[in-house]
Parts: sequence; C-alpha cells; structure tokens
Amino acid sequence: MEILPKAITNAIESLSDLPGIGSRSAERLVLNLMRANSGLDQKIARSLGELKSQVHECETCFHFCESNEKQCVLCRGQNRDPHVLCVVESPLDLIALEKTHEYKGLYHVLHGVISPLNRIGPQDLRLAQLFDRLKKNPDIQEIILATSGNTESDATAMYIAQEIQPFFIGKISRLSRGIPSGGDLDYLDIGTLSRAISERRDF
Amino acid sequence: MEILPKAITNAIESLSDLPGIGSRSAERLVLNLMRANSGLDQKIARSLGELKSQVHECETCFHFCESNEKQCVLCRGQNRDPHVLCVVESPLDLIALEKTHEYKGLYHVLHGVISPLNRIGPQDLRLAQLFDRLKKNPDIQEIILATSGNTESDATAMYIAQEIQPFFIGKISRLSRGIPSGGDLDYLDIGTLSRAISERRDF
Repeated sequence: MEILPKAITNAIESLSDLPGIGSRSAERLVLNLMRANSGLDQKIARSLGELKSQVHECETCFHFCESNEKQCVLCRGQNRDPHVLCVVESPLDLIALEKTHEYKGLYHVLHGVISPLNRIGPQDLRLAQLFDRLKKNPDIQEIILATSGNTESDATAMYIAQEIQPFFIGKISRLSRGIPSGGDLDYLDIGTLSRAISERRDF
Repeated sequence: MEILPKAITNAIESLSDLPGIGSRSAERLVLNLMRANSGLDQKIARSLGELKSQVHECETCFHFCESNEKQCVLCRGQNRDPHVLCVVESPLDLIALEKTHEYKGLYHVLHGVISPLNRIGPQDLRLAQLFDRLKKNPDIQEIILATSGNTESDATAMYIAQEIQPFFIGKISRLSRGIPSGGDLDYLDIGTLSRAISERRDF
C-alpha cells in the first residue's frame, strides 16, 4: 500500500534520479517543498522545464550559450586574448577556470573525455571541431590542455597533443601538477607528492 | 559578465534555494541535467509542476492525500486499529514510523511544533482538529505523542497532554528514550545517556 499520494512519490522518484541525491534526501526535499509557501516548487518546475530549449552549444567553442545566439559571451568578448586556447572537458571546468580570473584567452569545450570503458571515443567529443578550429585560426599560438588529473583525462590530453602535433606549430602546455593550496603533505596521495617532487620549481 | 546562459543560471538559482543544496551542488546538478539525454529535466519539471495541485491534506488525520479523495489511504484502511492514535509532527515522521511495521493504529499529523521563536503557536498546528477528533471518537483508548527528541517537540507534547487531560480518559504515552540501536555508549551525548539510565528497563 502506497502511503503517499502519487504526485508526491513521482516527485521523489524524479529528484532521486539526480546524481548525489538519494531517496531519503529526495523525500525530505519534496516534503519541504510541500510545506513551503514560497512557490519554489513552481519556480524549479519552470526553470527546468525551459532549461534545454533556451540553451545550445556555442558554434565556436561549444560552451553553453543562449539559443538565440550563435556564439557564447566568451567567444564574442572583445577583451579575450585570441592567441591562447584552453581545452577543457566540461562547462563546469570552464566556469572554475573563469573564477580564478587568471586566464584571459579563449576556450574549447570537449564535453567529455575519451573513455573506452564507457564506450566514449574521440568521435563522441568536440575533437574534430577543435582540430578544424586550429587549422583555420593561425592566430592561435598556444594550446593549454586543461584536463583533470585522472587517467582518462591524461589519456585524452595525450591523444590531442599527438593529433595536433603534425599541423600545429605553436606551444602545447598543460596545467601544473603538485600539492594543492592549503594541502597537508602527510595527507597527500603518493602520486601527487611524487609529481610535486619531480616537477619541483626553483625557489 | 555572465558566462552562462540565463536559463542555466535561473535553474541553478532555483535549485540552490532547496534546503541542503548549495550553489556549487546546484551548478553540478544543472550541468549534469544539460549533459544527460534521459529527459530527467522534463521529468522533474513535470512532477514538481503538478505536485501541489494534485495533493491536499486528509480531512481526518491531515496526512497528505490525493486531491480527489477526502481521506488518506491510512484513514480509509480497513486493517488499522481505531483504538490507538499516534500524533506526529510531520508526514516524514509518519512515513518513518510506517517503515517500522511496528504500529497499526491511526495517525494525526500536526504539521509543525509550537515554537515561540519562529512565531508558531498552537493555532498554527492541527491541534484544534486533534482535540475535536478525540472528543468525537470515544473509541480512541490510547494516544501516542510521537514527537521528536528536542525541546520544542517535548514542549509541544507536554502542551497536548495538558490540554487533553480534562476530557480524554484513555492512556497517553510517548516514544521511549534511550540509546539508539547500534549506538556506542562513549559517543552518546549526556542527555541521552542520563535518560537511558533513569528510564532503564528490567532485563
């Protein structure tokens, strides 16, 4: 016997399909929405309902952009350095890098990494478009392969470096590896620490 | 400068208004929805959109029930014991108790606790309806005040006990207090442990 109305169990089920939200959390969220008079339930319903229809990928860098515009704000931006191109796995990584205010160049979003286990090959990413972009823009003098620190990301970066070497004469760089800011040496994994030693810098 | 389309920031903002979901988590959830082809965004939008319109409170116990029915499944149930009434703070507590399969009686949902700090008085809960229900149902022989273990819940239970004593001749009980199942003695707070000693049971 269902002790909750169908509409509530539907809402719980749909929210618990979100990554990182279990059925207990979803239960609490939905019953919280039932209690609140803030109209938050309708606000979320509306914003998610129109999410995908109002957004598409920028035709240049494949970051998300308004569906009524061809290019994202970064590609249209006047004050971005057109000589550097930073290749990231996802829009989340782009946002993280933008928050540092350290980088002023352009981006290219791959939308994933090569992952044979998950049957994601080079053709599933925006790689052909990246190679095309490099060939058509001789202005680009440096490519930063800003992939994450795990094996699949490393392999993807290596694949890109290999593929572009025949025709790209600029500099290919990657993010530095080492101990994170505020990180305690004795808590670090061996991989990070050995990278930090082998890639040590002059003081 | 906004580096994300308006529809995405709208969705992030609305999700981060949910309790326990910060802006970082909301960002991840929304960008995950953007990536997934499962239609989960539309599923959540639909289920939350119709949530409140398809649910109202049972006119007897005030648990949630289908909006096209007057009573919830528990009040309509044939195999529930009509002699015991369990008073709970919220539908979440009702669900938790139902999951134990230990209780077979009826419920009454208060939808909150008396909390002077949050300006919630007895008139804001389903208390008048509880007293009315008790007066009209001489069948009820026991009331279990199944409120939580904090001060406001205790005070609410005490208020109810005081108010019903003049006219209710049945038994008034509450949930037992003590060490939780699987709990380590040395990790317990003093309050719980002293209750466990003072309310000890024969072996």
